[in-house]
Amino acid sequence: MINKLVTKIKKTEAPIVVGLDPMLNYLPKHILDAKIAEYGETMKAAGRAIVEYNKGLIDAIYDLVPAVKPQIAMYEQFGIEGLIAFEETVKYAKEKDLVVIGDVKRGDIGSTSAAYATAHLGKVTVGSKKLSAFDEDFATVNPYLGTDGIKPFVDVCKEEKKGIFVLVKTSNPSSGEFQDREIDGRPLYEWVGEKVAQWGEDAMGDEYSYVGAVVGATYPKMGKVLRQVMPKSYILVPGYGAQGGKGKDLVPFFNEDGLGAIVNSSRGIIAAYTKEPYAKFGEAGYADAARQAVLDMKADINQALGH
Amino acid sequence: MINKLVTKIKKTEAPIVVGLDPMLNYLPKHILDAKIAEYGETMKAAGRAIVEYNKGLIDAIYDLVPAVKPQIAMYEQFGIEGLIAFEETVKYAKEKDLVVIGDVKRGDIGSTSAAYATAHLGKVTVGSKKLSAFDEDFATVNPYLGTDGIKPFVDVCKEEKKGIFVLVKTSNPSSGEFQDREIDGRPLYEWVGEKVAQWGEDAMGDEYSYVGAVVGATYPKMGKVLRQVMPKSYILVPGYGAQGGKGKDLVPFFNEDGLGAIVNSSRGIIAAYTKEPYAKFGEAGYADAARQAVLDMKADINQALGH
Repeated sequence: MINKLVTKIKKTEAPIVVGLDPMLNYLPKHILDAKIAEYGETMKAAGRAIVEYNKGLIDAIYDLVPAVKPQIAMYEQFGIEGLIAFEETVKYAKEKDLVVIGDVKRGDIGSTSAAYATAHLGKVTVGSKKLSAFDEDFATVNPYLGTDGIKPFVDVCKEEKKGIFVLVKTSNPSSGEFQDREIDGRPLYEWVGEKVAQWGEDAMGDEYSYVGAVVGATYPKMGKVLRQVMPKSYILVPGYGAQGGKGKDLVPFFNEDGLGAIVNSSRGIIAAYTKEPYAKFGEAGYADAARQAVLDMKADINQALGH
Repeated sequence: MINKLVTKIKKTEAPIVVGLDPMLNYLPKHILDAKIAEYGETMKAAGRAIVEYNKGLIDAIYDLVPAVKPQIAMYEQFGIEGLIAFEETVKYAKEKDLVVIGDVKRGDIGSTSAAYATAHLGKVTVGSKKLSAFDEDFATVNPYLGTDGIKPFVDVCKEEKKGIFVLVKTSNPSSGEFQDREIDGRPLYEWVGEKVAQWGEDAMGDEYSYVGAVVGATYPKMGKVLRQVMPKSYILVPGYGAQGGKGKDLVPFFNEDGLGAIVNSSRGIIAAYTKEPYAKFGEAGYADAARQAVLDMKADINQALGH
């Protein structure tokens, strides 16, 4: 799957992943209202509205970008109906040949991580059948529990030719509280980055490993160091746009071949119509606004990279 | 909810939480076979079998223990049907007046943690209605992202009078890889423990805080230090039984009043019938075997604590 991701990034010339993180207040009013009219003020109305909104977004951007990244928390808050919406979103995006990164940030002790890996990337056995649950292409994973919390994910990745992105340095303001603390003269995130490189060593695609990393756009200097610590790991870079990261901040995350990083934007794309300069598209044009925001982001990044 | 947990621990004299982590191979054959006969080799068969198994367990132990802890990964691997089983398990346990600790180990940047907190402890707004999704009483949370990943959980806890247990020192073999690394002369888990104490300061129940911690039974010396670092935090202690922890290892996790810790056992209780000395109960007696295993665990812990 890392090979497919790299191929699609080259083809689209857009190292961009669109974060499908649907807050209800991002949804155009007519979409939610129609579902509430049909299902009442229920979880089902929310779930159905989210699916419609997402399908509109996917239809508008699937030819421009290699991947989407649904953030499962935004679906989980609507319970079962929300998770049905998550499942349908993953399926629809895959039908459009998009690579799907499940932003699930799971991680636990070995046997439990194995169950999470099964849930999101693998297959579970019922009787004589092997069945897939959510079946994303990649998942994000939390490293706090160490190697035996990560290994079950890597095993499933090798079996299924899928991938993970391990949290190394996150984009949020207080990420430094633990991640930046110095251990033998180097910050924790570097030690985690070193492990990411090791975990990926025996799980290599053609150019890059199945084991990638998450490093926030908001910390470009750290990104530069981590790019060197994990030369074969793709870096998933959140924090562009709404969280404050800009095109020029992204340069250190890329290798000299222009590969090695994929930048996420969520709100900045999916809710583009709520802000200038995209407000002119209006609520009804939310998907066209998203498309334009992707084109502008692509131009911003490629200009910064000197392409 | 921490007050209810403490009250129930005092009343049952059992600082024990039963981990409802149903692997399909723990289930008595007749339960799974019947559901496969009804629904085929499907996720639905797995989900329905898990609910029946769990209800049998809950019926057998609800008067003996204060709490149960369903591990969501074991449900999530069966997709939507698995999560329906999780939801029904939580509901059934609450009907039996058990405190429910959702072992979900979520954690993300602020806005995303807020959605997870809503999903598991809070309420989401759809139109004019406030609706609950999974509605556990407590959730486990991962600290890697720092304060702004935890704060949204604490806010919901205060609003809903619920609680969290933050991962501090986990029970797995490689937990030390990052958690034990020294920062200014003290291991990372102590720094995390200190933050747990701070996060809980303005979220106090009568005797203990809404913000507890997870510390593995497999590391009793570290438990002793952490008990002092976080005097007002309840410690959820996994790793007893199947993972290797014994009654005497648990003493350091408790305060002198005999409170302050609640010990989890999963396999050792719910799959007791598969191992000596409970094999005599047989598959059909899996719930009675679980009850006896709880009674033996209670005796082991109380003897170790000198009660």
